[in-house]
Amino acid sequence: MPEPFFGQIDPPQRLLMGPGPVNVHPRVLRAMSADMLGQFDPEMTEYMNQTMALYRQVFMTANRWTFLIDGTARAGIEAAMVSLVEPGARILIVRAGRFGLLLSEIAERIGADIRTLDLEWGEVATPEAIEAAIVAHRPAVFACIHGDTSTTMAQPLEGVGEICRKHGVLSYVDATATLGGMAVDVDGWGVDVVTGGLQKCMGGPPGSSPITISDRAAEHIFRRRHVESGIRAADATDGIGARIGSNYFDLAMVMDYWSEKRLNHHTEATTMLYGARECARVMLEEGLGTRFARHRAASAAVTAGLRAMGLNVFGQDAFRMTNVTGVWIPEGVNGDAVRARMREDFEIEIGTAFGPLAGRIWRIGAMGYNAMKHKVLHTIGALDTVLAGQGYAVRRGEGVDAALAAWNATLRDAA
Amino acid sequence: MPEPFFGQIDPPQRLLMGPGPVNVHPRVLRAMSADMLGQFDPEMTEYMNQTMALYRQVFMTANRWTFLIDGTARAGIEAAMVSLVEPGARILIVRAGRFGLLLSEIAERIGADIRTLDLEWGEVATPEAIEAAIVAHRPAVFACIHGDTSTTMAQPLEGVGEICRKHGVLSYVDATATLGGMAVDVDGWGVDVVTGGLQKCMGGPPGSSPITISDRAAEHIFRRRHVESGIRAADATDGIGARIGSNYFDLAMVMDYWSEKRLNHHTEATTMLYGARECARVMLEEGLGTRFARHRAASAAVTAGLRAMGLNVFGQDAFRMTNVTGVWIPEGVNGDAVRARMREDFEIEIGTAFGPLAGRIWRIGAMGYNAMKHKVLHTIGALDTVLAGQGYAVRRGEGVDAALAAWNATLRDAA
Repeated sequence: MPEPFFGQIDPPQRLLMGPGPVNVHPRVLRAMSADMLGQFDPEMTEYMNQTMALYRQVFMTANRWTFLIDGTARAGIEAAMVSLVEPGARILIVRAGRFGLLLSEIAERIGADIRTLDLEWGEVATPEAIEAAIVAHRPAVFACIHGDTSTTMAQPLEGVGEICRKHGVLSYVDATATLGGMAVDVDGWGVDVVTGGLQKCMGGPPGSSPITISDRAAEHIFRRRHVESGIRAADATDGIGARIGSNYFDLAMVMDYWSEKRLNHHTEATTMLYGARECARVMLEEGLGTRFARHRAASAAVTAGLRAMGLNVFGQDAFRMTNVTGVWIPEGVNGDAVRARMREDFEIEIGTAFGPLAGRIWRIGAMGYNAMKHKVLHTIGALDTVLAGQGYAVRRGEGVDAALAAWNATLRDAA
Repeated sequence: MPEPFFGQIDPPQRLLMGPGPVNVHPRVLRAMSADMLGQFDPEMTEYMNQTMALYRQVFMTANRWTFLIDGTARAGIEAAMVSLVEPGARILIVRAGRFGLLLSEIAERIGADIRTLDLEWGEVATPEAIEAAIVAHRPAVFACIHGDTSTTMAQPLEGVGEICRKHGVLSYVDATATLGGMAVDVDGWGVDVVTGGLQKCMGGPPGSSPITISDRAAEHIFRRRHVESGIRAADATDGIGARIGSNYFDLAMVMDYWSEKRLNHHTEATTMLYGARECARVMLEEGLGTRFARHRAASAAVTAGLRAMGLNVFGQDAFRMTNVTGVWIPEGVNGDAVRARMREDFEIEIGTAFGPLAGRIWRIGAMGYNAMKHKVLHTIGALDTVLAGQGYAVRRGEGVDAALAAWNATLRDAA
């Protein structure tokens, strides 16, 4: 046997309470162990259609164009941006964290005319500020992040779609970190394109990005359609808009593949499709309301537990994502040492941070299959022990008590 | 429970003898059922490093930069193209099938200066023709497909890397359809960048694209490095080359993520990584020589079986891919009806075709976990029955006899 060679895959049974990926629901992993189908076999195209129907419910939308991008959540973001935003077109981007910066980074590569609404990390934009910026900049596209894990804040989006439509602006929202945990109310918000991921609140693995597209955005994208020559029909006509800069992320061609045309593009990532489908089934079986309440309970429990231990929670409660909580690393405590002890002694992972918050906050996630009472309690309990071991004057036991009480109170209120 | 809702995933147990995807090795599916790790957990980064070491052996290379692109094989192709080819740079592309056309389609979107070596579908380029085209066009990059499933032909690549280096040209080869089935001799060929997929001869699912990059190509790509602002260090300096047009496919950033820097980019698709790792383990355990001989035996058996049935095999034997065989649909036989009967009566899928060969040939694959004696014999036997049922004057039983004899003879010669 050649060298080097390695043994069977055998990851530790670790509880992932960071900003994602998190532990995958066992039903999703089992669904992913099913064997392949031919990509145009009727059972395969039926699974694709079912996945579209399931994700319409996940995205709370009637959008026909609701499907998967084959790649991680970032692939969905790039597909949306490169297909919506033409080179030279003006885009207005809310930047209040790392992923807002990612949007403008992608827009730069597209060659867009970029205007930004810049906020401190941890702030959110008001609808009034968004409308004022739209009036001032007259963009073709408005883009923002729903829940930015880098800041743990969720941008309120009620009314934002309406504002955009009033001013003739297409809107794009990335909901990677909130989809499946908080309401991603696509039709209620009235936004045009929304992307997500599986590895946060959907309880799946990274590698597939659900996307939904309104009819008016699809029309805009189809105007940019240029079918590749290897598969184009003799009578094919191309769109009049600027050709989309990417082949892989050309949503016009990807939609043709997911439509009854079944025009070949990539080969759909079958195993990830099986996983995405099962993530949605698990979610819909639980029910959206129940699921969102469970995430709210987890968030309430984490924040109550941290505060009872004497720690300061990052950001404003009113805009907190319900699936990840930032907490200031106390003076004199080594953040990396705490994370190492959590992992090595308790097999629990909590997250570090990026940019201006790097080394200053931890991020504790409780999402998808991990937004569960016992997992939150074990995490707070472990942190209690680890902080005490690091010499921090923790009020022993109070964190777990408070977390348990907050969990129960939240679900009682929701019932 | 909301509507519509659907049952558990439960695909038919179909034998996929088309151009891919094919049935996945059961060990790969089992490996993919392992749970997540945090993306920077030491066990996760160790699995990433192991995967790099395993794919160096798969690609027969010492290239440090050997890793995975998160997306289907087409994602690897676009990552290679967009990172190697600057807007306005000249590229020479061999076009002898659908995937050669895909390369020029991607190059157009990049805004490259495209020159082509165009051949009939089914032809391959000689080294002399390649060198003459390089001398005539003086490209910065040369690109071609190793095995183009649309034509079932494999482009010979011995000496091509040397020709490119002599003329100061960077070279790129897509080996999606051959990796794991035929020798993809990256260092022997002397080519710079090679991409692959899992869903053909590697015996895995679509959704991950292995890639290998020579040091000189990596240096070229790093000259185009622009780290995104959400994660850049205060003292970061950008490259002097034209910024890569895609963030997701920016190989400079992807290499930074796979290096000891571990600079965050996407979240590695953990389940697909587990699968890719196991595909390589299965292959290396079998041994490259044994595995390539097994594919040669399958190809010999398929072609002998088809010919013994009185069918005409497409293309030249000397340049045939050993994992997929084109065969002319006989006069008076309905190609789609045959494929339907194969699928519905025998649960066996054989492939249709694209472009100028659409409706004219079938494509019969025998690759990865399906390049097995019994699977080839069942397929030829089923085709015998189906063709007879369609009124074609097949010489009953002779196809299976000839396939079995050819399989045994090939492996005897290889021993």
